[in-house]
Amino acid sequence: MREHPSVRVQRADLRRFVQAVFQSCGVPEPQSRTAAEVLCYADENGFDTHGVANLERIYVARLQDGRVDPLAAPAIVAETPATAVLDANDGLGLVAGARAMELAMEKARQTGIGCVVVRRSSHFGSAGYYTQQAQDAGMIGMAMTNLGSQTIARPLGGSVNMIGTNPIAVSAPAGQLPPFVLDMSTTVVATGKIRAAQRRGEAIPEGWLIDDEGQPVTDPRAYDEGTGHLQMLGGALETGGAKGYGLGLMVDIFCGILSGANVGPDPMLLRPEGQQQAKEDQNIGHFFLALHVEAFCPQAEFRTRMDSMLQTLLNCPAAAPATQVVYPGYLEAMGRRDGNQVQLDGAVFEQLASLAKRLGLNELPMTREVVQS
Amino acid sequence: MREHPSVRVQRADLRRFVQAVFQSCGVPEPQSRTAAEVLCYADENGFDTHGVANLERIYVARLQDGRVDPLAAPAIVAETPATAVLDANDGLGLVAGARAMELAMEKARQTGIGCVVVRRSSHFGSAGYYTQQAQDAGMIGMAMTNLGSQTIARPLGGSVNMIGTNPIAVSAPAGQLPPFVLDMSTTVVATGKIRAAQRRGEAIPEGWLIDDEGQPVTDPRAYDEGTGHLQMLGGALETGGAKGYGLGLMVDIFCGILSGANVGPDPMLLRPEGQQQAKEDQNIGHFFLALHVEAFCPQAEFRTRMDSMLQTLLNCPAAAPATQVVYPGYLEAMGRRDGNQVQLDGAVFEQLASLAKRLGLNELPMTREVVQS
Repeated sequence: MREHPSVRVQRADLRRFVQAVFQSCGVPEPQSRTAAEVLCYADENGFDTHGVANLERIYVARLQDGRVDPLAAPAIVAETPATAVLDANDGLGLVAGARAMELAMEKARQTGIGCVVVRRSSHFGSAGYYTQQAQDAGMIGMAMTNLGSQTIARPLGGSVNMIGTNPIAVSAPAGQLPPFVLDMSTTVVATGKIRAAQRRGEAIPEGWLIDDEGQPVTDPRAYDEGTGHLQMLGGALETGGAKGYGLGLMVDIFCGILSGANVGPDPMLLRPEGQQQAKEDQNIGHFFLALHVEAFCPQAEFRTRMDSMLQTLLNCPAAAPATQVVYPGYLEAMGRRDGNQVQLDGAVFEQLASLAKRLGLNELPMTREVVQS
Repeated sequence: MREHPSVRVQRADLRRFVQAVFQSCGVPEPQSRTAAEVLCYADENGFDTHGVANLERIYVARLQDGRVDPLAAPAIVAETPATAVLDANDGLGLVAGARAMELAMEKARQTGIGCVVVRRSSHFGSAGYYTQQAQDAGMIGMAMTNLGSQTIARPLGGSVNMIGTNPIAVSAPAGQLPPFVLDMSTTVVATGKIRAAQRRGEAIPEGWLIDDEGQPVTDPRAYDEGTGHLQMLGGALETGGAKGYGLGLMVDIFCGILSGANVGPDPMLLRPEGQQQAKEDQNIGHFFLALHVEAFCPQAEFRTRMDSMLQTLLNCPAAAPATQVVYPGYLEAMGRRDGNQVQLDGAVFEQLASLAKRLGLNELPMTREVVQS
């Protein structure tokens, strides 16, 4: 892949373009606006691996080949005062996810907490978008997703991939300071970071991949070649690998088992070659939790206490080689200061331009500004 | 410390003895029975670092010097249909925790999910006890605790300890197979494992401790000497350390900020020496969540799906150097097969014997059987 310098585009232009792409794939206007907002959130917050870089490969491809139904509407199939199960009916995870968190928040306003799980969904972008929905309303939000039966990593000590990257996100509002936003895969890294190193021809740190004997692998190409195996958070058993493995399984239980979606550890994986079905990221499950802060303590008190805790962390003297102590969400908020612009990888911008042409969208409705590196 | 061979005692004897200890410290009969059950759970399930080894040092000491009130009753200070805030009134965390999870479960039966936070509590033992309460009733349970303002680990890149070991536990019922029970600190290891290596005069694996320059430390004595700093799960930034750090902070938000308990990152930590208050594990906060499985899907279906997932993991062929793939909770359940006996460290048994004498409990009402090692 040629290297392109990064570019900056107007945030509103990017959202409008992405919405136009979804609409050209048959997604109705309001849903396509939601989908664009969720997808662009990732790029607006520096999670490039979960944003418009996936627009064509994941979303357009599935909308066009019928694996994702552009007209699907999420339906409530079970409900209590504080919980619900949504069936996304094979629609966009981006739309079902936003609707599910809204519903969790409505319930939290009534009962103090709301919990909504989703089945038959698809890739929902960045988990942090949904927790931010809750945070914007002064609530604590939690969001998780599994990858259906798509498998990325091995169970601890195992030799067959059985678990996805299974991310967990949590947001909590603060007062004067940027909110706490944790958005993490339960693997050591997301696979996008391995592929980025591969593109740049760089070695990866020890701890990301191991070979069949459990030895560290630093060549990122080993991942796609199947000789380097992505570790769960914590790595080996003696450095806490059972914890990352356990968190990944917890995500499959909350998102998959509870909702009726697929999960990573599927018996089909152990059938002889040829009798396995495709390990598809279909029938993905999500889990959303919204906690109404006011049910626990006054909102202002919560925010003051958050500020005190977060400011203490920011004030912590750094130890070498670090130069600054931050908390999850802080750097993203700093990077968002010019809220009108979004930085994109140059290659991703070129992909969007060629996608626009192929979809017959007259032109890429964005002016770009080349970023000096 | 002299080395003693391990011993086995009758489970019922141990519980009865621990209850007698709590009663002799002024804890009323029903509460002392609960406290004994919670504390012994740790030993019965192989979490020795959180069980009767702490009976004298943590519980008896605090009950005797007045930091923990033996007569305190947890009081509900805020409540909605699905949530509550409990004030433990400086009583035993073991008692407040069990009551809080019961309340969360009562609420979950009504609204599908129950969430209870606790403030002004104290050390609650092993988080897994509480999630097992939920699991025993066919629910999914989640429990977390912070350590009040007691600090064990540094924020990522920082040079001052600001975070506790902040554990997270999750249990989910299965059918024929042992339940899923994840019970983990958000640091690389619990401090008890470092001290155990110190007692045995053994080196610890790289990844647990780092020095002031971020280099690995394998001498366990460095931890108590203050020259080896415990890492959060994931270790350094490049191997996911921001995730363990974020999870630790999430626990402080859920347990401390939301309930009004103390948290690790307290501004007092950055005052000049001499102006700091003692970093006490007082006013600890806990967080409990119970999910009523029936609100989401039929119980039998849930258990069948759990069994399928867990059996697939057990069937996964092992990669060297591992010999078997298991899941969180499996080995503990296998170790519990002789449910009438509990194995104790010989030194811990001797501590209990001398505690019995000091408290004027006529004799240690346990027969022991020496374990051949």
